[in-house]
Amino acid sequence: MAEDKFIVTPWEVKGDVDYDKLTERFGTSKIDAELIERMVQHTGELHPMLKRGIFYSHRDMKWILDAHEKGPGFVLYTGRGPSGHTHLGHLMPWVFTKWLQDKFGVELYFQLTDDEKYMFGQDLELEDTKRFAYENILDIIALGFDKDKTHIFLDTEYAKTMYNIAIKVAKRVNFSTTKAVFGFENSTNIGSIWFTSMQAATAFLPSELKGKNIPCLIPCAIDQDPHFRVTRDIADKIGYFKPALIHCKMLPSLAGSDKMSASVSSSAIYTTDTPKQIKKKIGSAFTGGCVSVEEQREKGGDPDVCAVYQYLYYFFDWDDGSLNDRKAKCRSGELLCGHCKQYLTQKVTDFIVDHQEKREKAKELVEEYMLRD
Amino acid sequence: MAEDKFIVTPWEVKGDVDYDKLTERFGTSKIDAELIERMVQHTGELHPMLKRGIFYSHRDMKWILDAHEKGPGFVLYTGRGPSGHTHLGHLMPWVFTKWLQDKFGVELYFQLTDDEKYMFGQDLELEDTKRFAYENILDIIALGFDKDKTHIFLDTEYAKTMYNIAIKVAKRVNFSTTKAVFGFENSTNIGSIWFTSMQAATAFLPSELKGKNIPCLIPCAIDQDPHFRVTRDIADKIGYFKPALIHCKMLPSLAGSDKMSASVSSSAIYTTDTPKQIKKKIGSAFTGGCVSVEEQREKGGDPDVCAVYQYLYYFFDWDDGSLNDRKAKCRSGELLCGHCKQYLTQKVTDFIVDHQEKREKAKELVEEYMLRD
Repeated sequence: MAEDKFIVTPWEVKGDVDYDKLTERFGTSKIDAELIERMVQHTGELHPMLKRGIFYSHRDMKWILDAHEKGPGFVLYTGRGPSGHTHLGHLMPWVFTKWLQDKFGVELYFQLTDDEKYMFGQDLELEDTKRFAYENILDIIALGFDKDKTHIFLDTEYAKTMYNIAIKVAKRVNFSTTKAVFGFENSTNIGSIWFTSMQAATAFLPSELKGKNIPCLIPCAIDQDPHFRVTRDIADKIGYFKPALIHCKMLPSLAGSDKMSASVSSSAIYTTDTPKQIKKKIGSAFTGGCVSVEEQREKGGDPDVCAVYQYLYYFFDWDDGSLNDRKAKCRSGELLCGHCKQYLTQKVTDFIVDHQEKREKAKELVEEYMLRD
Repeated sequence: MAEDKFIVTPWEVKGDVDYDKLTERFGTSKIDAELIERMVQHTGELHPMLKRGIFYSHRDMKWILDAHEKGPGFVLYTGRGPSGHTHLGHLMPWVFTKWLQDKFGVELYFQLTDDEKYMFGQDLELEDTKRFAYENILDIIALGFDKDKTHIFLDTEYAKTMYNIAIKVAKRVNFSTTKAVFGFENSTNIGSIWFTSMQAATAFLPSELKGKNIPCLIPCAIDQDPHFRVTRDIADKIGYFKPALIHCKMLPSLAGSDKMSASVSSSAIYTTDTPKQIKKKIGSAFTGGCVSVEEQREKGGDPDVCAVYQYLYYFFDWDDGSLNDRKAKCRSGELLCGHCKQYLTQKVTDFIVDHQEKREKAKELVEEYMLRD
């Protein structure tokens, strides 16, 4: 079937992703009203990413709430593969992670997998992925994570601690499993094959550091789930809890399909972009408009396929009334693409300019967040 | 052909090893008279392990002598997989390595692969391999390596430094290669698949630490050669020299065949054995004798298949005159197995008692040798 023709792995997203089918494929659970209600009892508010189904899938989220209510509490873990600068698609789950940290008052471990991006990236040297890692860290800190409760590390700089946990994972995962889960082949390099052990290790790191088992919740884009399926499979064999997950969809590309890719720079907005670059990128974005103004006035546009609308929906317009109004006016032909592009450009520019100020200040704060051996 | 029916990998030695055929299989060069003569020009003496062909094979040994004569010098690297206590078969290449260090006045890096033995060993926990590593280190130090020029480390305790080199190796080695070289299968765990990167990394460690390329010579038993074939294949891709090797044969088992195995405790003499245990083990050794004293007096024994003779040849009787005399008297039936066993027992006991004294003193010296992150 056509709608099944999409690929989602931690390293590749292709085709139009059917997120409902993806939960079936991965074996995760959809977030339902009951779970949302229970979360809201703790958070006191409904995050728009939950309300809009951007965070839409989970594993063992109820167990995490149990752990929070009755003990032993929980920690958060998320990460970033530093293959380039940070774009808005990366920020999305981080913003939600910060909200979780604030609302639950818990610790966060933030892994930068510079080893992964080096070993998987044909054209990336270790110096490159380390440099990007420190660029990305500025974006993380700029979001305002609690510095007393947030621990950031690069795999290569925290390798002694990480390696000692990762080998426990690696002993229990065989090549067949990585073939089945990640699609590896005989031509895959042995660093890439090994790597999932390092991503798994962070789920157990807080338990190692605290000297007692503590539940771990991983907010991440759903393309990362395969790593944690492997992690969950072996967790109890080495005496740890299975990590829980809460998954988000991936911010669409400005070009109108697939995940926003860090490798196609015009399809994504980076936190390092200038207002001029932002204006140009949004100006060239794929929309649901018609070929001529006349035709669009007559037939209306299609917000469902429009990248500009998706950006507002995923990140830049949390006001349902305003957004629904925009949708209706697009469909009726009243609102033209130029208006929406101008509106989004202003929203994105305001956000990025403000973020860049915080990013500058973050340069002084890096050491306060870092874990190193 | 029957004589080809032997298996030699870094983790398994089976059958009667034909060492000539093994050099062909592995693609190494035999040490010839010219090379020995050139070595002696530097060492001033001919080590009996060279004279007797115990160290018999090499890769690029002439290049090492060039590097020593004209610069840039070289370093030594050897290692130990700490799956149990040290036996005499392990000491053999270490004794030769110490001689090389003394004669050439060079630095030595000594790797203890506690990660390897944990990931390959179904029944070994990380605590076990670490504990054995520190037991083995006492034996290393007891041999008298120069503490100012000898650097010992455990992979898990030096993991930050090692991981950063190993990922450079791992990026350039694919699963196909490890299948072909080590016989790995889809059921092999991903830690074992990864591991050769860590064993390779030590060959490049001195260059990393010194900030300039320095040739590396690896004295080891020939079963370890497959790791370094992989290492040599990728060395120049990451900007290092290929390591050179000098290989020894493996001390035969007291039971009369295969490599002395740490897992069959009666077939090997450990540095922790008591005189009583030594006497018992040598008493039960496989010899080339006949079933009765009468028959042996008449027909003579066969020193070529005798484990007691092999022990004298490999380690405990460097006097060619005495050893040849023994061989002749065995063949003629003049010398019975009991005599040789008694003689070897005395030699081994003297050695081990002396070694154990040095091993006790080594306990105070460990920190002076260790590299840790």
